Amino acid sequence: MNTMRIILICLPILLAACSAPRPEPPSWSIAIHGGAGVISKDIPDSVRIGYEESLGTALRLGAAMLDSGRTSLDVVEAVVRVLEDDPRFNAGRGAVYTADARHELDAAIMDGRALSAGAVAGVTTVRNPISLARQVMEQTPHVLLIGAGAEAFADQTGVERVPNTWFNTDLRRQQLDRAREREAERQQASLESRYGTVGAVALDRHGNLAAATSTGGMTNKRFGRVGDVPVIGAGTYADNATAAISCTGTGEQFIRHVVAHQVAAQMAFAGKSLDQAARFVIDTKLNPGDGGLIAVSRSGDIAMVFNSPGMFRGAADAKGRFEVAIWE
Amino acid sequence: MNTMRIILICLPILLAACSAPRPEPPSWSIAIHGGAGVISKDIPDSVRIGYEESLGTALRLGAAMLDSGRTSLDVVEAVVRVLEDDPRFNAGRGAVYTADARHELDAAIMDGRALSAGAVAGVTTVRNPISLARQVMEQTPHVLLIGAGAEAFADQTGVERVPNTWFNTDLRRQQLDRAREREAERQQASLESRYGTVGAVALDRHGNLAAATSTGGMTNKRFGRVGDVPVIGAGTYADNATAAISCTGTGEQFIRHVVAHQVAAQMAFAGKSLDQAARFVIDTKLNPGDGGLIAVSRSGDIAMVFNSPGMFRGAADAKGRFEVAIWE
Repeated sequence: MNTMRIILICLPILLAACSAPRPEPPSWSIAIHGGAGVISKDIPDSVRIGYEESLGTALRLGAAMLDSGRTSLDVVEAVVRVLEDDPRFNAGRGAVYTADARHELDAAIMDGRALSAGAVAGVTTVRNPISLARQVMEQTPHVLLIGAGAEAFADQTGVERVPNTWFNTDLRRQQLDRAREREAERQQASLESRYGTVGAVALDRHGNLAAATSTGGMTNKRFGRVGDVPVIGAGTYADNATAAISCTGTGEQFIRHVVAHQVAAQMAFAGKSLDQAARFVIDTKLNPGDGGLIAVSRSGDIAMVFNSPGMFRGAADAKGRFEVAIWE
Repeated sequence: MNTMRIILICLPILLAACSAPRPEPPSWSIAIHGGAGVISKDIPDSVRIGYEESLGTALRLGAAMLDSGRTSLDVVEAVVRVLEDDPRFNAGRGAVYTADARHELDAAIMDGRALSAGAVAGVTTVRNPISLARQVMEQTPHVLLIGAGAEAFADQTGVERVPNTWFNTDLRRQQLDRAREREAERQQASLESRYGTVGAVALDRHGNLAAATSTGGMTNKRFGRVGDVPVIGAGTYADNATAAISCTGTGEQFIRHVVAHQVAAQMAFAGKSLDQAARFVIDTKLNPGDGGLIAVSRSGDIAMVFNSPGMFRGAADAKGRFEVAIWE
């Protein structure tokens, strides 16, 4: 009787223990972007497929690294390096031309663990600006180094330098020529050629968030102009308490509205979800067409929100999600 | 009877009308700072009085302009120009020396009406960087111009350029020499010589907020290092919906925590008062000694909060408040 009673009491516990799945390894999530803007749906299939393949390659690398337990910081740097080296995007090789027909690159990286951050602006000879930004974060007490000072610092690190012409591509040169023609005709610059910034955000199996963004800025930009990318809080932000965010679009608007930090602040102070916060900022603070952002929350939720006709993007997570997209 | 009734009904209204004071002109408020840090209480009286007189001169100018109805944007620019020209402060003339014994100046200005903003970083020949920042805001579609590009833009405006040696002062040169000695002895740089940034925030009679900040950065800083001042959201922010904020201290900390925008965000999203928001960010996000901020809210409240031993500061408003202070 007594034994029977013990069995009856214990039975539900034993059943629960047997039916409980083995503890799964912690989750991971990643999102990437290759810029937002007016991306014509009439582009040839070959061009579309090329972009999708580029995004897929970068996303697969990030997903594999995260799956094997690598840190989100390593992942966002590695993914952005791939996108920087890819001439399709306006970052690293393939960067747009300035008004004086050169290239000035900006990049930022942020580690959500202790809000460590590094950024460079106006560099002209650094092949992978995102890696120089990481060196600023890890090897100096500073956050932001600009211009010749940043290049001089690059020489103290193992970061590769290249001639400014290394960033040249025919497509971007044509965009500059068209922008100059339009300027001569006092027409507004085409939105098409203004975007193409790249970025990555990730949550790793250790629960840490990181964000990275890299850009060549805007075609025909004034010598010395810096957009939102290296402005921590505007184009790039990561905080383990909330989310990692990387933006792309009309940089000045993202600076004025401190977009990346505002998404994190809406989560922290207004109790919004990642998606609610991202949509609120993009839909109510910016002007239509300004651009978009990708973000991953501390719980692994992914948001990819934009108010431009398209945004090159991709997302993957530990549950098997793997997708790349361009339009809505 | 009917007349009596009308009189009885109207009497309270008439009395109220008679006792109501004439409508006062709308209020105004201003706060200024000349940097936060370790400021010894043992400084000679003559030095202390000199700082107080400098702060008083700038504050009187701002108060008089606001009282006569000038815009907060004009006021914060004018006040910061006075502090830039004053060799006592680390902005404009009197700026600290970089590691290569030159001067690199940063400044930002923001108009709370439409979140317009302008900033310059790493300029070396602009006498009043705050005025160049205003030109960036008003004459270009950009927010941030850096280095030689910013100087080239200055030549297209009426902004005065000077030789880099114009910023030289004996005191700052001695601070560089001491910093180099300490570096040679592998000691930490003195906190005393790191600060001295200037800033102003104001609410004008038209209900508009504006903020301005200008700095020479930190003594012995690495060539190309940029702190929080020109990073909109970090060292400088103004939004008519919340407050105008100007920060001073260890720039990298103010960038990581997006301090100025975080104060505004705490007010907007967490319903905190200006003072609560400012104290929360300074007391719980930063490390002791990191620095402080001045802020004016949309209703004219003034906050001057710091976690360093001192902050050169001043505040005035339409009700007759006028004070300058250095320590708690």
